[in-house]
Amino acid sequence: MPRTSEPGRTVGSRLLELLFAFTPDAPVLSLAELSRRTGLPHPTARRLVLELVSTGALDRRPDGRFVVGLRLWQLGTLAPLTESLRTMARPFMEDLYTALNQHVQLAIVEGREAVILERMSAPQAVGLVSQVGGRLPLHCSGVGQVLLSHASGSLFDEVLEGPLPKHTTRTVTDPRSLRRALAACRKSGYAIVRGELTDDADSVATRVMDKEGRVVAALSVVFRAGSARPSVVLPSVITSGLGLSRRLGWRPGVPIRTS
Amino acid sequence: MPRTSEPGRTVGSRLLELLFAFTPDAPVLSLAELSRRTGLPHPTARRLVLELVSTGALDRRPDGRFVVGLRLWQLGTLAPLTESLRTMARPFMEDLYTALNQHVQLAIVEGREAVILERMSAPQAVGLVSQVGGRLPLHCSGVGQVLLSHASGSLFDEVLEGPLPKHTTRTVTDPRSLRRALAACRKSGYAIVRGELTDDADSVATRVMDKEGRVVAALSVVFRAGSARPSVVLPSVITSGLGLSRRLGWRPGVPIRTS
Repeated sequence: MPRTSEPGRTVGSRLLELLFAFTPDAPVLSLAELSRRTGLPHPTARRLVLELVSTGALDRRPDGRFVVGLRLWQLGTLAPLTESLRTMARPFMEDLYTALNQHVQLAIVEGREAVILERMSAPQAVGLVSQVGGRLPLHCSGVGQVLLSHASGSLFDEVLEGPLPKHTTRTVTDPRSLRRALAACRKSGYAIVRGELTDDADSVATRVMDKEGRVVAALSVVFRAGSARPSVVLPSVITSGLGLSRRLGWRPGVPIRTS
Repeated sequence: MPRTSEPGRTVGSRLLELLFAFTPDAPVLSLAELSRRTGLPHPTARRLVLELVSTGALDRRPDGRFVVGLRLWQLGTLAPLTESLRTMARPFMEDLYTALNQHVQLAIVEGREAVILERMSAPQAVGLVSQVGGRLPLHCSGVGQVLLSHASGSLFDEVLEGPLPKHTTRTVTDPRSLRRALAACRKSGYAIVRGELTDDADSVATRVMDKEGRVVAALSVVFRAGSARPSVVLPSVITSGLGLSRRLGWRPGVPIRTS
């Protein structure tokens, strides 16, 4: 296998490290920043970045810095359950947004985190850090708890046995308490999470099933603590989640499975 | 530069070829298909594909075939002018769709083609092949002509001097006629394209400007030939395009530039 001077890192892995150096917090990077973030020597980083630019995976801006290229965005649209699920979810999310006038989010599992697939909120809305493509922890966000409670046994154990970072004073980090909350969520199909991710935000989330009853996504409403009562928000979130599940082919009576 | 046995193809370029082998027509590929599409020997393809799977760039399905991974979708959302433009365009596109009840598309230039960034249409609508992330030719689609007429001189010449494939009997493939049409579009800001891409579809498209007056996108309505009159559709398309341009910071009086 062609390797570079540093053992264990193939040219391929270096190329991917350069790509994945771009994050929502750092969508524009200079060559120096890319070199620092990947630990690659400047000349190596330069050569590989130019290769990425030549295929359109990255774009070079007029100021010389780099951004993710449109070709990569196009490629990303081919990932299953992204564009199709967004398209199907959007009407349900819009209606929920119209009914409640609160942030609405749709998320799926990626690795050990939840990834926001779609969101809706008033342009002037504040207090929500999420964006499409952004990540949320599984253990202390509404969508995260719904996804985690229906996750495969191995992911479930991995998260519960791993570190459970405390984001606020209210984040549940005791594995036994969390297991109880997740068991309840698995039974009810929804999660109410208050101030566990950020102090001033509450979330009401529910599961979304496909035609085989697999929980493929979670739908949530997020609102400033005190601006709504979860018990008032909950029925509309549940009906929207069931509506989207029906759109995906699920029918009442189809047993709900962990993925 | 580390090269494989075949001259001219670096490991990096092979890796990217494997990624870009996935297309809207072929979003699920087996190892054999990946090997064939890239011309890579089976063992090489296998090794690189597994490397792509280990980073989450590709996912392996239960049937053993491969798809684009969610991590790549996430990375793609970082490309400039994708998620942000989609989010800003959506209300304008929805209103246009509500007013006309016809397909609505938003596209930008990528390489020598237009790429569909967002679209809206009734789920039961037929006759439109486009999808988000899909491509349209610049010379004979509505959005394409708007984008091409405002493109940089080099792209403009490259397209006009290159092959101009004939998609229907009505596709304009004479460079002089096309230049005249594009000059008119550059002046008016809109294009009416009838049956040039598919026999039974007409399109009315207009430009979208950013605050510096650069034409960053094109907005169009596409309808079955004969189901609407372009002159009736045009004013609403233009007002929506101007509305979106204002949302991007453009103001009347800011000169319109080619990109």
